[in-house]
Amino acid sequence: MGPHPAVAAIRLAVRRVLHDVLTDHTTDPAGTDEPLVLVACSGGADSMALASALAFETRKLPVRAGGITVDHGLQNGSDTRATEVVGRMTALGLTPVEAITVTVGREGGPEAAARDARYAALDAAAERHGAAAILLGHTRDDQAETVLLGLARGSGIRSLSGMAAVSGAAGRYRRPFLQLDRHTVRKACIAQELAVWDDPHNSDPAYTRSRLRHEGLPALEKALGKGVVEALARTAQLSRDDADALDTWAADAETAVRDEAGALECAKLFGLPPAVRRRVLRRAVIAEGAPAGSLFARHIEEVDRLITGWRGQGAINLPGRVEARRQGGRLVIRQG
Amino acid sequence: MGPHPAVAAIRLAVRRVLHDVLTDHTTDPAGTDEPLVLVACSGGADSMALASALAFETRKLPVRAGGITVDHGLQNGSDTRATEVVGRMTALGLTPVEAITVTVGREGGPEAAARDARYAALDAAAERHGAAAILLGHTRDDQAETVLLGLARGSGIRSLSGMAAVSGAAGRYRRPFLQLDRHTVRKACIAQELAVWDDPHNSDPAYTRSRLRHEGLPALEKALGKGVVEALARTAQLSRDDADALDTWAADAETAVRDEAGALECAKLFGLPPAVRRRVLRRAVIAEGAPAGSLFARHIEEVDRLITGWRGQGAINLPGRVEARRQGGRLVIRQG
Repeated sequence: MGPHPAVAAIRLAVRRVLHDVLTDHTTDPAGTDEPLVLVACSGGADSMALASALAFETRKLPVRAGGITVDHGLQNGSDTRATEVVGRMTALGLTPVEAITVTVGREGGPEAAARDARYAALDAAAERHGAAAILLGHTRDDQAETVLLGLARGSGIRSLSGMAAVSGAAGRYRRPFLQLDRHTVRKACIAQELAVWDDPHNSDPAYTRSRLRHEGLPALEKALGKGVVEALARTAQLSRDDADALDTWAADAETAVRDEAGALECAKLFGLPPAVRRRVLRRAVIAEGAPAGSLFARHIEEVDRLITGWRGQGAINLPGRVEARRQGGRLVIRQG
Repeated sequence: MGPHPAVAAIRLAVRRVLHDVLTDHTTDPAGTDEPLVLVACSGGADSMALASALAFETRKLPVRAGGITVDHGLQNGSDTRATEVVGRMTALGLTPVEAITVTVGREGGPEAAARDARYAALDAAAERHGAAAILLGHTRDDQAETVLLGLARGSGIRSLSGMAAVSGAAGRYRRPFLQLDRHTVRKACIAQELAVWDDPHNSDPAYTRSRLRHEGLPALEKALGKGVVEALARTAQLSRDDADALDTWAADAETAVRDEAGALECAKLFGLPPAVRRRVLRRAVIAEGAPAGSLFARHIEEVDRLITGWRGQGAINLPGRVEARRQGGRLVIRQG
């Protein structure tokens, strides 16, 4: 008798990613004989399922499998929890296994600060252990939530692209479960009798993602039908491809609209499709020192009006003390 | 004392659109002296506000203002209702004013069938009266609902573009309230003591849009914050521009990837960004007779695998008896 269908599904997903990692590894001249793949594991159902599938699949492959758990120090007893998770990963046969304690700052709100601290720790761990990849347990449901969070920003299709299946420096982070629904992953834990931990943050209505998961998305499914999560995940993939293509176009266009001295020619900018022109302007403003995170659609729209609605406006002040103005048919962008 | 701020807001919105209509009209050699602008009016708050603003603004402009109400014949007494709406539009000073009875079919579900019948009647009325434009009362909230309905299809950024401010043959349809929230428009009705009619369909949970309006969107706002409607409307505009730019690119690319005999070259298709290649394939399949409405993302993905995942697959059957197969480095698409 084969494994439970949910267990088979999570293993297949991990196997596919390990295949990609091995393919990349053989073409890496600096690669050791057996690449190390780490799982980032909170002890929750999704990442425990991932840890179990990684342990199982690597038995038959020339891949070493280890695990990292990050203690954010935000809840009482989180250190004990981290020790427990280390024990569970070790019991699955993973090695090396490590708990890392991080200090969470405040920048960007509690969720963003915790995420930043977590990824910094994972990056450092990958370097220290010489890991070829770190697997993350995000499911299709997490992806749907991420798309809705991006939608709430209203800042365009890049923010609708959700999480990439492969991301980070040299494609370090891989998300094998991005096409699997949370329900399947949880069933795989039950079928394997894995002990999992329910993070109280995940059901705390103080967190936007938690409200979305427990109230927003269910209400949307009730109104629009059961396919919403799948539709959101598909939207993420299509938006990502579209955003990538438009970024490529903007990079090419930016070269074409500059004169010999490198100045942006307004007449040439005017001839671009609005979607491409706005991206060219955004690139140019960031290149002069405006921080990408502080640059909103309304800033770029104002710069765009120097091209499309010219009636002698003065200089436009942008984040990072960057200034844009029109001068003799050229768009001059400079840090003050 | 000036008008109530909400009344000022709806009038400004209509004034801007009338300005555009007049500008277009003066460049139209077939235009009469005073263009006719019609309002499509159900008698509900949004379109009654629109009718009132149209009547007010055209007093000072070389524009004739009339109105059309469409009786879908779906509810008891809808004919009496239509007669009432005609009376209200006449009382506002609009002329000509007309009620049109339509027969709603069944294709695409009740909402789509009613919409198709309504637009066919409005198109015919515009032709009959020689109207330069038909104004529609859709608000920013309607736009947000339309974006979410598109999101539920999961078919990419074109379906996230919502409704255009200008659409239809020769830009016939205009939506002056697309940037105004429903609350403002309703306040303008109250401030002007306009009698309005609440369509029971708008609160009938049997309709997807009604469920979205009364349950889905409020829950999403509760989870994500009050700016959701605005963010969705902004997403519509950005997605529309992005989709337009990518369509332009695909049209150019389609020419470039065909050989001298007009056949699609697989090697050249392979070199395109995925977002552009999928659009080229979609165009090519539709050009051979596949009905656009039956052609889903999964069909195009399967055709795409003939290019990106070639392992000797056979012909792929597509809607409209269209067939795609790879033959000697060419992609052959043909209706059987």
